[in-house]
Amino acid sequence: MSTIQYRVSELAKRFSLEFKGDGERIIDGVGTLSGAGPSQLSFLSNSKYSAQLATTRAGVVVLNSDAVASCPTAALVARDPYVAYAHIAALFEHLPAAPHGIHPSAVVATGARVSATASIGPCCVIEDGAVVEDGAVLGPHCIVGSHCTVGAQSRLVARVTLVTRVTLGKRVLVHPGAVIGSDGFGLAFDRDHWVKLPQLGGVRIGDDCEIGANTTIDRGALDDTVLEEDVRLDNQIQIAHNVHVGAHTAMAGCAAVAGSAKIGRYCMIGGNAGVLGHLEVADRVTITAKSLVTHSIREAGEYSSGIPLQENRQWRRNAARFKHLDELARRVSALEKDKTDD
Amino acid sequence: MSTIQYRVSELAKRFSLEFKGDGERIIDGVGTLSGAGPSQLSFLSNSKYSAQLATTRAGVVVLNSDAVASCPTAALVARDPYVAYAHIAALFEHLPAAPHGIHPSAVVATGARVSATASIGPCCVIEDGAVVEDGAVLGPHCIVGSHCTVGAQSRLVARVTLVTRVTLGKRVLVHPGAVIGSDGFGLAFDRDHWVKLPQLGGVRIGDDCEIGANTTIDRGALDDTVLEEDVRLDNQIQIAHNVHVGAHTAMAGCAAVAGSAKIGRYCMIGGNAGVLGHLEVADRVTITAKSLVTHSIREAGEYSSGIPLQENRQWRRNAARFKHLDELARRVSALEKDKTDD
Amino acid sequence: MSTIQYRVSELAKRFSLEFKGDGERIIDGVGTLSGAGPSQLSFLSNSKYSAQLATTRAGVVVLNSDAVASCPTAALVARDPYVAYAHIAALFEHLPAAPHGIHPSAVVATGARVSATASIGPCCVIEDGAVVEDGAVLGPHCIVGSHCTVGAQSRLVARVTLVTRVTLGKRVLVHPGAVIGSDGFGLAFDRDHWVKLPQLGGVRIGDDCEIGANTTIDRGALDDTVLEEDVRLDNQIQIAHNVHVGAHTAMAGCAAVAGSAKIGRYCMIGGNAGVLGHLEVADRVTITAKSLVTHSIREAGEYSSGIPLQENRQWRRNAARFKHLDELARRVSALEKDKTDD
Repeated sequence: MSTIQYRVSELAKRFSLEFKGDGERIIDGVGTLSGAGPSQLSFLSNSKYSAQLATTRAGVVVLNSDAVASCPTAALVARDPYVAYAHIAALFEHLPAAPHGIHPSAVVATGARVSATASIGPCCVIEDGAVVEDGAVLGPHCIVGSHCTVGAQSRLVARVTLVTRVTLGKRVLVHPGAVIGSDGFGLAFDRDHWVKLPQLGGVRIGDDCEIGANTTIDRGALDDTVLEEDVRLDNQIQIAHNVHVGAHTAMAGCAAVAGSAKIGRYCMIGGNAGVLGHLEVADRVTITAKSLVTHSIREAGEYSSGIPLQENRQWRRNAARFKHLDELARRVSALEKDKTDD
Repeated sequence: MSTIQYRVSELAKRFSLEFKGDGERIIDGVGTLSGAGPSQLSFLSNSKYSAQLATTRAGVVVLNSDAVASCPTAALVARDPYVAYAHIAALFEHLPAAPHGIHPSAVVATGARVSATASIGPCCVIEDGAVVEDGAVLGPHCIVGSHCTVGAQSRLVARVTLVTRVTLGKRVLVHPGAVIGSDGFGLAFDRDHWVKLPQLGGVRIGDDCEIGANTTIDRGALDDTVLEEDVRLDNQIQIAHNVHVGAHTAMAGCAAVAGSAKIGRYCMIGGNAGVLGHLEVADRVTITAKSLVTHSIREAGEYSSGIPLQENRQWRRNAARFKHLDELARRVSALEKDKTDD
Repeated sequence: MSTIQYRVSELAKRFSLEFKGDGERIIDGVGTLSGAGPSQLSFLSNSKYSAQLATTRAGVVVLNSDAVASCPTAALVARDPYVAYAHIAALFEHLPAAPHGIHPSAVVATGARVSATASIGPCCVIEDGAVVEDGAVLGPHCIVGSHCTVGAQSRLVARVTLVTRVTLGKRVLVHPGAVIGSDGFGLAFDRDHWVKLPQLGGVRIGDDCEIGANTTIDRGALDDTVLEEDVRLDNQIQIAHNVHVGAHTAMAGCAAVAGSAKIGRYCMIGGNAGVLGHLEVADRVTITAKSLVTHSIREAGEYSSGIPLQENRQWRRNAARFKHLDELARRVSALEKDKTDD
């Protein structure tokens, strides 16, 4: 399928890396250390895989200077092999070119403004007051609601919905099924029934953010919900209204942040972790998978909640004891007191 | 953008509130206490924000009688300021008027019945035997499957899918990506493989319910899955087949209810909380975020499970001890017995 | 609505079951023991419902030989009544016949290959290099991306998105909102920002798999994400890149599996359970609801984590003690040491 080809020496030059071995070798793809063939490039960044280096059949391996001596094939030497590999691998990605212009099946309101260099796919719907900037690509079935803006070079892969008052920065990548700008969940209880609070804010997504498949980001009640630049959200994440996420923070699949929480910069939120509403989380905080943040976190560091997995019968006995843990602690205190009284 | 304007005295009259201060002041929007300007209305319902009242620049503030004296601007006095604010704020919401009729790009089966006062947006698909009642609004990309009914004045914001045998009451609001009436997850294990159980029931959603973005509600295996009136579901909630949710119950984002569970009226289910299958939860039960309901709950009250968040190193030590909690309890019992034997 | 009818004796013959009682009785539907009427078939497979047998008004009941004597109506005797019922009930499912051919509103690329016996619904988009095989049915709003294949007799109910390099086997059933083949979440941290790793692999789904509503399955980074045959996924499940799921494994709603984890055959993963990345789970492992798999599991069996639900005040006291559990254990050790020293 591929006709993309680079010499090892060309890759070294392009990414300012040193190379060892056969610089003339032709590379036409990438692969794992164990799976790559002689025309493919691989990488070693995790020492767990060091043993695979000896037997790799890859044409060239990206690795750090410590590993060069053990490399049986050509090598590209990088300070951070994983980052260097990420840049190189991008050369070998086949993204079908998106044709400029609007597919005939798309429905574009007369009050919408779509750049001539944007690409609007089949069955897209662009509503009044929406703006799609230069080079933006909308795959099939995207909906850009009223007063939404898709920034330059952004890409909505397919079936993305921007409801209303959503602004995407430049180079934002949104995966299928994501819903951005839906109503925040705001309710007032009036004696015996709920009254809905209108959600009058919007959503602002910074440059270079990525939003995963089926992720939902609600618009603010009064002010906006905000993701600063380079925020990376995996699939099925829920961001409630008026949340603020600092730049370069990444969240793994199924994480959820409740209303008006403020997450710092450079945080890492683990899979299915949760943050309660109105809390603040400092910069450079890591939350491990499935933990629930129940109070504000003022200091960088790693935080956890939850219980380790055990064989079910053993776990049942321990879990049953948890229900009386306070009593157990009191009994220990009593024993200590007895001891002292002796 | 807005040209909606009310005098303070008009708002007081319309919502039967007392006003203090300048009744002639013109209000054209709403905002937070700290952000609202002189032509905007704000509210004080949470005493945490009392300090902001002194310095607010809002044109008028909705508050209760205790706070009137501290209000530096016009005031609207309400028994429940949050509820009063919800009603007033709705006046300032700009919902683009939905045109009556069927968009030319929509696909409506000849056997479907669509009211002349309904609005069917671009690329909607209405299948045979479906009914869309008076004043219902379907945004772009909605699918109304066979034998589904969308009740009067209901609104499917965009890209909502009703699969089959789904009945929505009146004034139901459904957000993008929601799937209602998908197959329940019913399987029988036949020696070495799974056999699917056909899902022959439907879904009934009561009047005034709200269903969040990317929420899924499966149809029943034999009987229907039911949400009574005024049930409020946030985003990414999963309701399995044959679940029954009582009136006025609200669930926060990512909650999940397993098959045939029966949740009472006026319950509050926290974010990412879960309810196991076939359980019953009484009326007026609150489940805190991320808790798992593992047994039926017979009495109103607040219920929780889970572990508090801690710094990771500290947490690891405690979590490791949990694996031997039963043994620890036995050791305490032994010490107590020794004591008694002394 | 139904005109599907079978005599009890016909059902017995068709499914090789013994019958007792009136073989001439006409059956035109199925129902629960408590709800079925005289022309409906019901079943008893769970002894919890035995008491309902005495008063059932069903025309015939599928049950095992032990229960025949207690059955007040005609009976079909099966080794596994639930499996037999699953097969019989399928006769009474009304799936609207899908017309062969491509709906005029669908957009099919010239480079796509669609079988003449396939059915492509309204607003579907089939991209270049995609293949739809014999008898496959795509409901409205499905997207089949470049280099995706929909196997023979597979059914995409509605609004399913296959992004790229996705291969579905035969008879695969995918529910609305599912996204298969979205980018895996691969990022390298380059000093002060994220660099995306291109996701160059695909997804392979085996024969007879079922994928729930709004479930997401990412494509692999280099190799493929794989579901072997007869894997059953409920709604809102997240399968990350390069996960491998063994044949006949079933996962309940909202479960999530992180990158490169390998799940065995015949596993049962409970609702909202999680598996961390790069772990291995043996065959025939059951994980209970909301548990987090934090280490590889080498042996078949049932595994759990988590804490039982309690009334909130009681829970708070116990949870507070958990934060000092390590210290408590040390105090118990000290008491034991004192005892020994005595």
